[in-house]
Amino acid sequence: MQLVAEEIDIGTRSPTVLLHVTDAEELGAHPLDRVEIRSDGRTHTGIVEVTEELVDPGGLGVTRNLGHITGSVGVTLAPKPDSVYYIKKKLDEIELERDELDTIVRDINADRLNDVELGAFVCGTYTNGLSLQETMHLTECMSDAGEIMAWDDSLIADKHSIGGVAGNRVTPIVVPIVAAAGIKIPKTSSRAVTSPAGTADTVEVLCDVDFTIDEIQDIVHETNGCMVWGGAVNLSPVDDKIIRAETPLSVDPPGQIIASVLSKKQSAGSTHVVIDIPYGEGSKVESLSAARELAEDFKRVGNHLGMTLECTITQGQQPIGRGIGPVLEARDVLQVLTGDGPEDLRLKSLRLADILLEICDVDERAGDLLDSGRALEKFREIIEVQGGDSSVEPDDLVPGRRTETVSAGRSGIVTHVNNRLISELARRAGAPKDKRAGLYLHQAVGDEVVEGDDLFTIHAEKVDKLQDATSLERRVEAVRVRSRDEALVERI
Amino acid sequence: MQLVAEEIDIGTRSPTVLLHVTDAEELGAHPLDRVEIRSDGRTHTGIVEVTEELVDPGGLGVTRNLGHITGSVGVTLAPKPDSVYYIKKKLDEIELERDELDTIVRDINADRLNDVELGAFVCGTYTNGLSLQETMHLTECMSDAGEIMAWDDSLIADKHSIGGVAGNRVTPIVVPIVAAAGIKIPKTSSRAVTSPAGTADTVEVLCDVDFTIDEIQDIVHETNGCMVWGGAVNLSPVDDKIIRAETPLSVDPPGQIIASVLSKKQSAGSTHVVIDIPYGEGSKVESLSAARELAEDFKRVGNHLGMTLECTITQGQQPIGRGIGPVLEARDVLQVLTGDGPEDLRLKSLRLADILLEICDVDERAGDLLDSGRALEKFREIIEVQGGDSSVEPDDLVPGRRTETVSAGRSGIVTHVNNRLISELARRAGAPKDKRAGLYLHQAVGDEVVEGDDLFTIHAEKVDKLQDATSLERRVEAVRVRSRDEALVERI
Repeated sequence: MQLVAEEIDIGTRSPTVLLHVTDAEELGAHPLDRVEIRSDGRTHTGIVEVTEELVDPGGLGVTRNLGHITGSVGVTLAPKPDSVYYIKKKLDEIELERDELDTIVRDINADRLNDVELGAFVCGTYTNGLSLQETMHLTECMSDAGEIMAWDDSLIADKHSIGGVAGNRVTPIVVPIVAAAGIKIPKTSSRAVTSPAGTADTVEVLCDVDFTIDEIQDIVHETNGCMVWGGAVNLSPVDDKIIRAETPLSVDPPGQIIASVLSKKQSAGSTHVVIDIPYGEGSKVESLSAARELAEDFKRVGNHLGMTLECTITQGQQPIGRGIGPVLEARDVLQVLTGDGPEDLRLKSLRLADILLEICDVDERAGDLLDSGRALEKFREIIEVQGGDSSVEPDDLVPGRRTETVSAGRSGIVTHVNNRLISELARRAGAPKDKRAGLYLHQAVGDEVVEGDDLFTIHAEKVDKLQDATSLERRVEAVRVRSRDEALVERI
Repeated sequence: MQLVAEEIDIGTRSPTVLLHVTDAEELGAHPLDRVEIRSDGRTHTGIVEVTEELVDPGGLGVTRNLGHITGSVGVTLAPKPDSVYYIKKKLDEIELERDELDTIVRDINADRLNDVELGAFVCGTYTNGLSLQETMHLTECMSDAGEIMAWDDSLIADKHSIGGVAGNRVTPIVVPIVAAAGIKIPKTSSRAVTSPAGTADTVEVLCDVDFTIDEIQDIVHETNGCMVWGGAVNLSPVDDKIIRAETPLSVDPPGQIIASVLSKKQSAGSTHVVIDIPYGEGSKVESLSAARELAEDFKRVGNHLGMTLECTITQGQQPIGRGIGPVLEARDVLQVLTGDGPEDLRLKSLRLADILLEICDVDERAGDLLDSGRALEKFREIIEVQGGDSSVEPDDLVPGRRTETVSAGRSGIVTHVNNRLISELARRAGAPKDKRAGLYLHQAVGDEVVEGDDLFTIHAEKVDKLQDATSLERRVEAVRVRSRDEALVERI
């Protein structure tokens, strides 16, 4: 069928073509089918939506992510991509071959799958799991689909936390420690998707995080380290697209976690890697045994890829650090680097850095690098090269001035700080969009409080966001205080 | 957030709101999230898409299926619907309770699920199956979600084939036979989705099929039977929405088949039902044992709903009848009713009608009702009431005049007629959109042919459609002819 194409913008969706309902009938095309568009000797594949108004009969709406297609084009119904058959195979609990996973990864990368199919891939790997072999292959295929960073050095360090813990901003402390020891550590981080801050959002409080691969390599050549946003470079583009389908379902299958993390490490050229696996009620990995199993698989896949890889299993039931939200977390980080700050954040960062230094065969200890001020010096160097103010001090980082402080309704012991609720409150307060919004925790689990003591303060930039957070706060118990005897035995 | 809404048309997609990227960031809304829109004291839920162009900052594009929302509206990020947690539970292989299935059905019905979530529901019920208990509950919930047809009669007959066989147009033969015996049979049928004709497409060659529930009841009160399109009445609206997610994946889990079919029968007020389960290579049910298991489950769920239900297990490896495509199938039907026509279509229709008459406690035999001309008379009566020409004869039904006849390249026996390829050829020739397009099979499995004998003729209305079909035909072997010894033992 010959149609006249015009560009339309439906934003972030897969490459889409809008057909008038009569043309769709004529083509035999249903919504979510694919059509091939031939334009200027090239063929593009788009996913069908049907309209009665947005385009006229004979017209074709084409989203911009299909390339700039306008004018007269040939349109035919396209067959189902092979990957749909392989996804079905996975739903049927049949192990996939390397070339089948490769086809799936290529089709996801080229946006040839619709949301139902992408969701089915996620569900298949979630319910039926990925074997170790499949995980290795998927990791390689995902890495192959993106850009790579090449290094002359034989030793490139990296660290990653699988996330799920509020605060927990260890990266901007570990990176300068390791870089100060003379080890290259080109760290890319993510922005928040459902959390109140990603490492990239937090670092962005202090300097730019949006660089090209060449710029990143220049920064690392100059300072040994970097703290940049991974989304700007194309290290494992398929990962972001898979996450898009995982997010609505809140599923994160272990094999996908490994492939997601290690494909990026592989593309970043990392050779020595520490993976942090927080576990416990409310975090991504709920039990110690599941955390251990995931750690073993991480090591096997890492070793298969030629990496020296160690895992840490850490407590993930409560936030790490006091601040939640970009500015509040950046302040925690800067306090630790200047010799102050939350003890748990300091200890966790030092332990991860020590393990990384050890597998890199470096004799120096993280504690020395931090206490001597060399890590702080390196940190200031990196943020200066990344376009930030290297003279920044913790007191320069001022959280939102619209606040609501929640105090203890009784005396006792803090028995629980709910990660998920703390994150939700910080998001309602405006984080990560409002950098100064978030929460400051005055207490941690195990602290003794008397009635009226501050538990936490909500910070916001805008009145309505503060109201939004406080209205939720009143309906939930984000920080639990129990009397000394109830702390052990609570009667319901 | 307060935005100004305007209507946009992205056709058939779930109720969608288009947010400008800056407003989406401010709301913390990602694509596929949901927002609540408050307008005129009512709250609507829409699924988020993000744009930089189609709406301006401060504006909100709202698809028409959300209701006609315009002007200033309040917009807030909506929580995930509960059904998403239940879908995840199903992915985790946990049996769902009745109220959980009910919530899922309600959310699907209200279009509150995005495609990823809908796909996940289909995948969960496909990989982990539905227990008999879940199937019963799902059937009831799906029926409850739609309209119902109420009858004064204590006996309402119905039949259904789970499909997958080309041709197989038994419904327009069974309905008049049963109606002629004095039994009410208010038959609703579907249009083609991926096949070259649904029963509704075929009947539409002869008369209207698009009626309201009241009109359908009037037709049945007058004639005892009807042959109408089920899509125009809202008997199990959720079913169509589930099928939308099943189609791209080509999955059709047994529990879903049962719930889909019997929810509609329940809503149609059917009390006595025959379900035809074609099985064999290439049909929906591949093995005899799977067909038997499905039949048993159909009976259990049907009995639970208070129906008298029998199943037939029939061969589904090759087409039934000679014509494929609306006009060609309608001609087969009319030939059988006038005492001629394909023998397999006649025999299958008579057997299904006999079983239905038997469970309805009717003494008359289908063969007598057909051979006496009473079925034909009833047929003409029904199509007249449905606005058709009751004097139509088989010769009035002329297939497309642009033809290509495929002949046997060797002498031997027809060993296989490929259902899937035959359907694909008929679709390429233009069916079901072009009513006269399709295929006529000159031979069936077991027929002896000599080189040069006609195997089948492709009929089309348009030259390019004929070319499209013939170009596929040359690359495949839709009808297989083998020499007498090869027919039994083929050496590869």
